[in-house]
Amino acid sequence: MLGARCGWQALRCCSSLPRAVRLRVREALGAREPADEVKVQGWVRSVRAQKEVLFLHINDGSSLENLQVVADPSLENRDLTFGSAVEVEGKLVKSPHRMQNMELKAETIRVVGPCDTWLFPLKMKERHPLEYVRQFPHLRCRNNTLGSLLRIRSEATAAIHSFFQDNGYVHIHTPIITSNDCEGAGELFQIEASNEARESAEKTHFFNVPAFLTVSGQLHLEVMTGAFTHVFTFGPTFRAENSQSRRHLAEFYMVEAELSFTENLQDIMQVIEDLVKTATSTVLSKCPRDVELFHKYVAPAQKDRLEQMLKNKFVTISYNEAVEILKQASQTFTFKPEWGCDLQTEHEKYLVKHCGEVPVFVINYPYDLKPFYMRDNEDGPQRTVAAVDLLVPGIGELCGGSLREERLPFLESRLQRLGLADTYQWYLDLRKFGSVPHGGFGMGFERYLQYILGVDNIKDVIPFPRFSHSCLL
Amino acid sequence: MLGARCGWQALRCCSSLPRAVRLRVREALGAREPADEVKVQGWVRSVRAQKEVLFLHINDGSSLENLQVVADPSLENRDLTFGSAVEVEGKLVKSPHRMQNMELKAETIRVVGPCDTWLFPLKMKERHPLEYVRQFPHLRCRNNTLGSLLRIRSEATAAIHSFFQDNGYVHIHTPIITSNDCEGAGELFQIEASNEARESAEKTHFFNVPAFLTVSGQLHLEVMTGAFTHVFTFGPTFRAENSQSRRHLAEFYMVEAELSFTENLQDIMQVIEDLVKTATSTVLSKCPRDVELFHKYVAPAQKDRLEQMLKNKFVTISYNEAVEILKQASQTFTFKPEWGCDLQTEHEKYLVKHCGEVPVFVINYPYDLKPFYMRDNEDGPQRTVAAVDLLVPGIGELCGGSLREERLPFLESRLQRLGLADTYQWYLDLRKFGSVPHGGFGMGFERYLQYILGVDNIKDVIPFPRFSHSCLL
Repeated sequence: MLGARCGWQALRCCSSLPRAVRLRVREALGAREPADEVKVQGWVRSVRAQKEVLFLHINDGSSLENLQVVADPSLENRDLTFGSAVEVEGKLVKSPHRMQNMELKAETIRVVGPCDTWLFPLKMKERHPLEYVRQFPHLRCRNNTLGSLLRIRSEATAAIHSFFQDNGYVHIHTPIITSNDCEGAGELFQIEASNEARESAEKTHFFNVPAFLTVSGQLHLEVMTGAFTHVFTFGPTFRAENSQSRRHLAEFYMVEAELSFTENLQDIMQVIEDLVKTATSTVLSKCPRDVELFHKYVAPAQKDRLEQMLKNKFVTISYNEAVEILKQASQTFTFKPEWGCDLQTEHEKYLVKHCGEVPVFVINYPYDLKPFYMRDNEDGPQRTVAAVDLLVPGIGELCGGSLREERLPFLESRLQRLGLADTYQWYLDLRKFGSVPHGGFGMGFERYLQYILGVDNIKDVIPFPRFSHSCLL
Repeated sequence: MLGARCGWQALRCCSSLPRAVRLRVREALGAREPADEVKVQGWVRSVRAQKEVLFLHINDGSSLENLQVVADPSLENRDLTFGSAVEVEGKLVKSPHRMQNMELKAETIRVVGPCDTWLFPLKMKERHPLEYVRQFPHLRCRNNTLGSLLRIRSEATAAIHSFFQDNGYVHIHTPIITSNDCEGAGELFQIEASNEARESAEKTHFFNVPAFLTVSGQLHLEVMTGAFTHVFTFGPTFRAENSQSRRHLAEFYMVEAELSFTENLQDIMQVIEDLVKTATSTVLSKCPRDVELFHKYVAPAQKDRLEQMLKNKFVTISYNEAVEILKQASQTFTFKPEWGCDLQTEHEKYLVKHCGEVPVFVINYPYDLKPFYMRDNEDGPQRTVAAVDLLVPGIGELCGGSLREERLPFLESRLQRLGLADTYQWYLDLRKFGSVPHGGFGMGFERYLQYILGVDNIKDVIPFPRFSHSCLL
């Protein structure tokens, strides 16, 4: 019995148990009572009735690990099926099996919520393909793979927040609804009060002006670079792209940061590299078993790649070099590589392969390829800007950043040429009152998860994917 | 000179210095070099030129504290004005003044970004009213009060995340775009691909169905209570309310949590109370000076109130009791208190006052007042539900929660009566497959900030307020 040998060591050996059990054990220890009488709540993952013994595996979502319950066959009942919710009381005992430390000798089993296994789309001990479970957005969190994904996503979110907090960044909630179009991309969602509410305001907008869902918090974050040296935001962003790609969603999360008093693109790249490495090593150490599931069954090559990534410095090449590499490639591309043209996914993949399947920074892009706010490198008449993209194996672009044009005359003339000087008067204002050299970047959070886990389709790394023709629940 | 006496004590005495300075000192210490040669970057908060000495106060946004710079008058230049961005190199020396530990003896001063003080709407050493700075959403972060607010908001966000992580909650990003209307409130924003993108899809919706901005993540969070015992979300929510109130925004942040295997409303209330107390004491200890600014200049009574709140258990009364208290009040209300009627703001304020200006839980509201998902108390034919609101001084409703109806027959008949059984088939499904008793709550984050800081208008606790007729930037 655990009670007799209880101590911190026993607690440690329980660390692979579901959370509810660990808490019970801890409570019992605190009260100096025998620790083996526990109540465990969770969902049945498997039922195996033998002649003399009934085996259950139950899971409470706190980890991938199930707790084995051993019971007298008399405790069986027909509601005790895969997927049902149960409450088991009994004694926690040392398991005779090599694979687990503990098992629960049940005294009572109560089915809290039955589950009709005929109608339930998930089946016991079946490894459902991700495409299959995607059809059931309200039930797929009960699938092992999605359960692991959601725990990893939660830990990765926390790791990213911690990274910025530990480095003195102020967290800014940039607005979701905006009257701006940061990228000038045009693929925007417009919002309006819905029909019922609209009637009274038929001819006017709710906000008096057309309003859109944000495509990036950058411009609003730049507002803050006039008062803080380090700011970040981490929230949803939106694109009305009519795409069914494995890399695009209509609603996705972005991590964005801006640093003021920053004159060097290298400083931005250093933060990107630190962020990717710190978040990744935190996730690997906080949810090893959940990550293992992906590295074992979803993307077997990914584990080594991440270890290499964590050890080595990211490679940096200029856009000029990138174009030269592509031109000299033996591979034929659908889009011919040419200076002044955007890098396509096929190009990005080739560059990453060329550099040895490691993360690659590509810097100093042509001026005309990039948005108005990027800083002119002055290496020729409007030739290149201090922009950076981070390309990673299997994904392509993971992060994009730049120094921002902080010089009023440069920015003013560019906006005037684009006919945007009036729209962005407030943005020009930022350069009139205590402007500082600054820069920043954005990282697609779902792409980051795809990258570290080796998940092919972006729809499988977000709890409720939204894309063209689909908004389930 | 600091260099000679350098040690951890010196570092500690530097703790009130701007972050850039602290880092420099730390770097210098690490390298065992004299720590007094520093470069400081920030914005000028005051300039005072005397005959023999030039005084500057500069701030880098890491705290409310300015660093005093002492310079030879020859370093003055006409760009050195309030609001300008500067880089100062010099020696960090012990200050002869009682109010500060350190000052910077400048050797060089470089104006990085000048600021035209005539055009700049913020003025040196002026305590601008919050209404005034609200007119300049792109510049108001440079105001002391808003700077403090943004640091507090950032710390409060972190404190709330930590509270849930420390208690084993999985963080779920509930969707922003949804085809549901959780509260049935009708005051929704509808979204559609904007004009350019729309043309090709004239007659169809981007998502094939009408899509809205979320008013609450609750229903999606409930999906997760089928696989995890503790989940939370913290993100933007939206209401298309045509209101100019001091308590409403069109875009605001909500903290929401759900707990499964929870049969008692008290358990939900305990989490609410723990959350409010833990977040508040964290904020008070992490940004004492920023909070002090509010408690000194904005809401002098707030400090004592918070101390009382942290010390005492929140009061609980039932809706029945609340109505009795209101009926016996000597005060006349605009809305006559009556069993079965919603509590109005005037009622909430009275109840809080009646209980001694402390947080008050009101529980067990009439069945007909509350949404379909709240659990029937079965204390009469559809008489009350297990709902709770937390009322706090100065604000009224801060949190709302309930046990959710987990029993399929109860939920099914209620949805059928409302004609919503088809719409919520997926929600009913959750009760068919391993349903568990569960409950949760939501807390308005801006109202929480208003409460702890005593800020009257909700527009002053969010970086970019959105409300009817206004969506600046």
